[in-house]
Amino acid sequence: MPTTHPETRAAEPGPDEPNALSTDTLGVQTSTTQQSPVAATVTTRPDAPTGSGTFVFDFADGNKDLKDLLGGKGANLAEMTNLGLPVPPGFTITTDACRWFLLHDEEPTELAVQMEEHLSRMESRLGRTLGDADDPLLLSVRSGAKFSMPGMMETVLNVGLNDASVEGLATHSGDPRFAWDSYRRLVQMFGKTVLGIDGARFEERLDAKKAAHGSTNDLSLDADDLRALVAEYKDVVRAETGRDFPQDPREQLSMAVLAVFRSWNTDRARLYRRQEKIPDDLGTAVNVMAMVFGNLGDNSGTGVAFTRDPASGRPGSYGDYLEKAQGEDVVAGIRNTLSLDDLARIDPASHTELQRIMHVLESHYKDLCDIEFTIERGRLWMLQTRVGKRTAAAAFRIAVQLVDEGVIDMDTAVTRVNGHQLAKLMFPQFDPKADRTLLATGMAASPGAAVGRAAFTSETAIEWAANGDDVILVRRETNPDDLGGMVASRGVLTSRGGKTSHAAVVARGMGRTCVVGVEALRVDPKHHEVTTTDGRRFAEGDVISIDGTNGEVYLGAVPVSPSPVAEVLRGETLDGRIDADEHELLDAVQRIMDHADARRRMGVRANADTPDDAAKARGFGASGVGLCRTEHMFLGSRRGIVERLILARTPDARNAALQELLPLQREDFVGILEAMDGLPVVIRLLDPPLHEFLPDFTTLSVKVAVAEALGKRDAEAEELLRQVQRLHEQNPMLGTRGVRLGLVVPDLFQLQVQAIAEASARLKKAGKDPRPEIMVPLIATVEELVVIRHESEKTLARVATETGVDLHIPIGTMIELPRAAMTAAQIAEEADFFSFGTNDMTQTVWGFSRDDVEAAFFPQYMEHGIFSVSPFESIDVAGVGRVVGIAAWEGKEVKPDLTVGVCGEHGGDPDSIHFFESIAIDYVSCSPFRVPVARLEAGRASILGSTQVASDTR
Amino acid sequence: MPTTHPETRAAEPGPDEPNALSTDTLGVQTSTTQQSPVAATVTTRPDAPTGSGTFVFDFADGNKDLKDLLGGKGANLAEMTNLGLPVPPGFTITTDACRWFLLHDEEPTELAVQMEEHLSRMESRLGRTLGDADDPLLLSVRSGAKFSMPGMMETVLNVGLNDASVEGLATHSGDPRFAWDSYRRLVQMFGKTVLGIDGARFEERLDAKKAAHGSTNDLSLDADDLRALVAEYKDVVRAETGRDFPQDPREQLSMAVLAVFRSWNTDRARLYRRQEKIPDDLGTAVNVMAMVFGNLGDNSGTGVAFTRDPASGRPGSYGDYLEKAQGEDVVAGIRNTLSLDDLARIDPASHTELQRIMHVLESHYKDLCDIEFTIERGRLWMLQTRVGKRTAAAAFRIAVQLVDEGVIDMDTAVTRVNGHQLAKLMFPQFDPKADRTLLATGMAASPGAAVGRAAFTSETAIEWAANGDDVILVRRETNPDDLGGMVASRGVLTSRGGKTSHAAVVARGMGRTCVVGVEALRVDPKHHEVTTTDGRRFAEGDVISIDGTNGEVYLGAVPVSPSPVAEVLRGETLDGRIDADEHELLDAVQRIMDHADARRRMGVRANADTPDDAAKARGFGASGVGLCRTEHMFLGSRRGIVERLILARTPDARNAALQELLPLQREDFVGILEAMDGLPVVIRLLDPPLHEFLPDFTTLSVKVAVAEALGKRDAEAEELLRQVQRLHEQNPMLGTRGVRLGLVVPDLFQLQVQAIAEASARLKKAGKDPRPEIMVPLIATVEELVVIRHESEKTLARVATETGVDLHIPIGTMIELPRAAMTAAQIAEEADFFSFGTNDMTQTVWGFSRDDVEAAFFPQYMEHGIFSVSPFESIDVAGVGRVVGIAAWEGKEVKPDLTVGVCGEHGGDPDSIHFFESIAIDYVSCSPFRVPVARLEAGRASILGSTQVASDTR
Repeated sequence: MPTTHPETRAAEPGPDEPNALSTDTLGVQTSTTQQSPVAATVTTRPDAPTGSGTFVFDFADGNKDLKDLLGGKGANLAEMTNLGLPVPPGFTITTDACRWFLLHDEEPTELAVQMEEHLSRMESRLGRTLGDADDPLLLSVRSGAKFSMPGMMETVLNVGLNDASVEGLATHSGDPRFAWDSYRRLVQMFGKTVLGIDGARFEERLDAKKAAHGSTNDLSLDADDLRALVAEYKDVVRAETGRDFPQDPREQLSMAVLAVFRSWNTDRARLYRRQEKIPDDLGTAVNVMAMVFGNLGDNSGTGVAFTRDPASGRPGSYGDYLEKAQGEDVVAGIRNTLSLDDLARIDPASHTELQRIMHVLESHYKDLCDIEFTIERGRLWMLQTRVGKRTAAAAFRIAVQLVDEGVIDMDTAVTRVNGHQLAKLMFPQFDPKADRTLLATGMAASPGAAVGRAAFTSETAIEWAANGDDVILVRRETNPDDLGGMVASRGVLTSRGGKTSHAAVVARGMGRTCVVGVEALRVDPKHHEVTTTDGRRFAEGDVISIDGTNGEVYLGAVPVSPSPVAEVLRGETLDGRIDADEHELLDAVQRIMDHADARRRMGVRANADTPDDAAKARGFGASGVGLCRTEHMFLGSRRGIVERLILARTPDARNAALQELLPLQREDFVGILEAMDGLPVVIRLLDPPLHEFLPDFTTLSVKVAVAEALGKRDAEAEELLRQVQRLHEQNPMLGTRGVRLGLVVPDLFQLQVQAIAEASARLKKAGKDPRPEIMVPLIATVEELVVIRHESEKTLARVATETGVDLHIPIGTMIELPRAAMTAAQIAEEADFFSFGTNDMTQTVWGFSRDDVEAAFFPQYMEHGIFSVSPFESIDVAGVGRVVGIAAWEGKEVKPDLTVGVCGEHGGDPDSIHFFESIAIDYVSCSPFRVPVARLEAGRASILGSTQVASDTR
Repeated sequence: MPTTHPETRAAEPGPDEPNALSTDTLGVQTSTTQQSPVAATVTTRPDAPTGSGTFVFDFADGNKDLKDLLGGKGANLAEMTNLGLPVPPGFTITTDACRWFLLHDEEPTELAVQMEEHLSRMESRLGRTLGDADDPLLLSVRSGAKFSMPGMMETVLNVGLNDASVEGLATHSGDPRFAWDSYRRLVQMFGKTVLGIDGARFEERLDAKKAAHGSTNDLSLDADDLRALVAEYKDVVRAETGRDFPQDPREQLSMAVLAVFRSWNTDRARLYRRQEKIPDDLGTAVNVMAMVFGNLGDNSGTGVAFTRDPASGRPGSYGDYLEKAQGEDVVAGIRNTLSLDDLARIDPASHTELQRIMHVLESHYKDLCDIEFTIERGRLWMLQTRVGKRTAAAAFRIAVQLVDEGVIDMDTAVTRVNGHQLAKLMFPQFDPKADRTLLATGMAASPGAAVGRAAFTSETAIEWAANGDDVILVRRETNPDDLGGMVASRGVLTSRGGKTSHAAVVARGMGRTCVVGVEALRVDPKHHEVTTTDGRRFAEGDVISIDGTNGEVYLGAVPVSPSPVAEVLRGETLDGRIDADEHELLDAVQRIMDHADARRRMGVRANADTPDDAAKARGFGASGVGLCRTEHMFLGSRRGIVERLILARTPDARNAALQELLPLQREDFVGILEAMDGLPVVIRLLDPPLHEFLPDFTTLSVKVAVAEALGKRDAEAEELLRQVQRLHEQNPMLGTRGVRLGLVVPDLFQLQVQAIAEASARLKKAGKDPRPEIMVPLIATVEELVVIRHESEKTLARVATETGVDLHIPIGTMIELPRAAMTAAQIAEEADFFSFGTNDMTQTVWGFSRDDVEAAFFPQYMEHGIFSVSPFESIDVAGVGRVVGIAAWEGKEVKPDLTVGVCGEHGGDPDSIHFFESIAIDYVSCSPFRVPVARLEAGRASILGSTQVASDTR
């Protein structure tokens, strides 16, 4: 538990990090600022910049910790400079200068002066002058914000060339082709990024020139071609902007810097920031560096490299090299690249130096680094470095390799991987070498690779699955009626809905592969076929394959490779089935999981409604069942009993339904308690929206009306309709659910309590150790719990007397309504434990129901940047998180030994788990398949603590 | 504004008052503990009692401020004793003793000792001994908790009589009939309340005795009759309890005291406390007093009196007197009572003394007192006093009388009345003298007296009202479709639903008289008639009358008297139409309202959607419109346009609908801004649940299916059904509403903004002073507001340019979702004002929709004591209030000049207004008719401050 009341922490200054989600090494969203869970979220804004001060830093004056001021690129250039690595001289213009400019629409007066000073220093150091007609100094100008950001201007190379200096460069380099190629590049880049001319205007002229030579390779152009191309480019500039390409090198530099500043505020950059929750007022830095030339003759070139293989994680450097090229050519893929081994052959000295530098960098950053380098006439220059992105498998292997090499400790290794990566490794995947026929692509909603016969209704899916077929349930969209069909299927495919649709959410919850929103598909259940917008079709019963990792749908069966990681995590042995790489990976995963388990404070339980799920969860390392949803036990064949129970108008009718349910429920509980013997099983009393257990009001109305219209009145249906109408709710989500139903339908909850008690007694008599806990759903006010608790204690005492078995069963409550959270102190007095239902809490805190809003406005909200991630996927820290934090704190304040868990889906979401750690939640509960993910993230959260950032390496 | 951050106030110790609603002088619920609005509600519990200390207080040792320890009755007896008034000697056993007893199921050991000491002191002082066979001391034993509580044992008189002492009493008093009557009363009361024997066992024997004399008057029984009756009563005790009536006077006393203690925990008392939010651990005191006898001969009697007339408020004492009787006879109404004037004639000395004492009490308590007294053989004794209950009219008159008499100041006078009383005075009422035929009785849902023709559908109501008829809308229950019909009607009558049903809530909101839940009525719209369970009926079109103050329904027209108070408050003059009493009342109301206005901090605005309502509100003293619901402007005939707008699938179709709406909206705004010229008008952009503007999904489905079944397919209806199905929501309350609709339907909000701007511009050009403010509904996150604000500012700038009129229109937001409240600090940065929609906030904080839950489980919840009042009627301080308090505080913290109002219905609820004062809300907004109520309560709240209690006089 935190040691100060969270409400007193409201005024604490936040860390300097923005209130933003950062992307860690593999694009994982991680909250970079741990909010005080109870106080309101306060966006920490930098102070407004002042118009004076230091706006320009020499590379030698910075370091890697100055990312706020120098941006990521500038800070790492400074770090390399100070490590003595060969970085071309240069300086960084700070984010403060940018922010001043954006606020006042003019540069701070001192900026020009300081830039001139630094430029002069570079000139005297290099013995070359910007714009010199004989031997000009040329510059690169690159943006470099704290977080890399698409939509911002990136780079202008060769600043300083003009009609005069290009001749000097040609003479001095002895390579006129190089000089004119450089000038051509400057005009093109400057025209596009600084002057805002459509890049195609230049591309088409370049292509025409190459075509005239019958080639597509730029090396086919000679100096004269390029000189002519420059003339054409300058015509383009004049035609498009009404003025000539600027010949003054200092004007070029100044315009480029301001263009970088301005690019901070393009619509695309703004939208990106809104989506990524990056504050608008950070600003970008600008890096100005002396040009080095990979396109200067035969012993020049440029490349990118990684200190280890970022794909497989194998040790040993890895990279691409392109001779006679500048940096952007590698990325643009204009020619096939060479490998680092080729470089060793071509230029062994540079290769050796590169290997040395990579070793220095990895030792220094203690992690995989990626770098950009250029070789100019045999001399190696470092242009950029950063901690490199990598695949999931590589992340695990590299982390453990670094431990074994003594570079980092196991704590650090655990922070170098994450749950998203682990989840990827756990899912089976399609054999990458196999042939396949792509049919359409939708949204990847729940990962995995599933193959089966397409079934268009849940009934069909259940029937075919019962016959032993693998089935893919294919629906326009799913609803609660499809639960049985989803359980029976290997995967779920819908033509509508997004990542938070019913299909997506439920499939993720049960670990089924799911692809949603495949809009190219038209599902026609009436004619038992699916057609695509491009005219193809498949029939019900045909085999299809769906890939929940990339959203692809294939016709026919694609071979699937099982995940050895999942098998090992479930405690299976794999023997000789794996190769050395896989062996190293499995070993790495196991070691990291062991360490995460050793370090984690939070428990990890599973949401499980059946003995099978409970056993599976136990295999995956769950230390109990955090949520057993009894309403799931009532769907399917027992639904009729529940319908009779709800519609019962006499105590006798109600009692008959209850007596029918009792033995079934008792068996349910015996099974699940046996599977979790010795571990806690939190059983939630019935929490169904009424309408899920009643015939659909509209369907029934139609049936009755049609029968009447045809003169065949159906008295039974009419009576049923009257009952359903009586119970019909405008907003079932806000209706008679949970404890309300328990208070309105006498004996219902007590039947369940009796079944739990009798199951326990039977198991105890058989020498087992059942540990059920009773959870009351949808409490809004303590008085509800008082009444149910009182009745339940009487029931437990009665069963204890009848069976002669001691029964001490804790009674606690869901906290899933804002009011319960706000009055948690009162509720804690009556509850043995809390479990936060963050799904429902999200619905009421935001005032929208998942069933309704996802399709209706989430897409527009994502587009407007109002959401970057659905609050149903990752907990909304500022709203829902604050409410949960208040309740957790105030509950424990009243009752320090109150167990506080989370059983909403957020319990299996990595970012959410870090938040739960920060508010001292005791355990999370998630679907069985997510248990290893939660174990890993709980370990990471413990290690990272509540204030440190998982990763800020982007 | 409070001067410390509310979150830091969480740990402040609460006052000693319980966390309870107390009933002030006329049964008005007032929160007796002002909670910190932000911190959780903490029930302040008394410390556990210890087993030693002072458990018995002589009347002379207490005072009126010791109600916690001595209960209300004991504290006031002590006060009178110390005023030198003739109170029979006695003592009070403290609540601590009771609490110890209830905790340990035995008396604290010192209690018996202390009682014996006090008893001895009484005996020596009075020269009589308990149980003495010659001249016995007799005692009364009465319960007396801090709050008077039905369900608790109340009184046992004549303790100390037994078979021996009754003879002594007979001899000593010289009145054997009196002695045996006293003994008879003891056995009867003791048997019933201490021994738990059914009172009927005694009543039937008493009645038989009287019948034997051919009389129903107890004075017809002589001493012998009564002696025989005592013997019969003792047989009853033996038969019912298996033991004899206890003869030991000390055993009688001890048993009576413990019976009072035990009565604290009867089911009825517990339920009452749960309903009234009185803590269970307060305990009751017990008052033991020497008996004085109103039944001791001719110059004895007993009575109750008020220091002024509690019905009319006229000065001069008022009371009932009964000769030869004990206290309970007056209440039981066994004989007709006499007046105080009769007493002056019968016993002038006692009457003079009584008048003197009443003067002393009123001067001392500075308020109307009621008293119980007994005259024993010409000597006057005071048995009880308290500040007396009174009618609404009396409350106003007495408060101002006391000011004019110099007893209290105007501040105090304002606190002596309340909004509930004012509201009662404002409604027209049926002439009390007129004849009437009662048809049935339901729940009084919205006060007033309405007469009109019964219309069974909204269409009929609208049609008849258009023809100039007064109409009562009679429905089984109402739904949003009935809004037009309700507007057209004088009153609304439903056979189903409770005080929070749609009918009740909407009728209260629009000030229509409403009676709901008249279960004896069967509404049969098909046959155009209503039948009652007792077989009577009336047809559609027949005239009925409904009384919204007592829930009665009459056949035919009952004459109605208008409320002069309402007329005066609306600024009308009444001339000679009123009598002197009414004149004094109107003067009192006016003076109190003037003072409340002068003292109040909060503004009072009105919720008004039409120019008429706005004008009415202005008449009632509203200082602006706090909520103009534009969706109300779209119901009725314009609904089709909105339907077309929502269903539009092309920009052209949408635009056509918008262009149709624009001039209509502009006229709407011109009208309302003109009516409120110079005052703010907060216009909420469209906030309709989608389904309210679309054809009903089920009805349409039935229509289409029936047409198809009959082979008459309706292509148009089928297409409409597809559209409606596409937009159909499972939970419309949690669906695409408010700002979500504004973000999903492009241009909709901007059309409204344009209409507001154009209306303003036109009025400004005409020399008016329009002050519109734009309010964005259903904001959950600041990003939504950012987008709408940005668009709206562009629209306003455009209209300003087009019209050449300066337009500075504030843009603010509803805070009606928990998430908006939790992130209020962020939202405040983008909002010019907040307005709390506490209705919707209640729905999401509690997770129930008013439409669904009222009928479904509110009745059971009230029964279980989970609610004492619907959270839709009076704000739920612990939950919704806390959320509102957090947002109000944090919004102002960020932006100190942020205007923060409340426009939910709670804005017109007295208790809620006091809460809003405590959290420094700037204004409340309510329906026009509630404006005077809100003005008064805002004044009271200012005067009472945030920690003082309105009244604790019960």
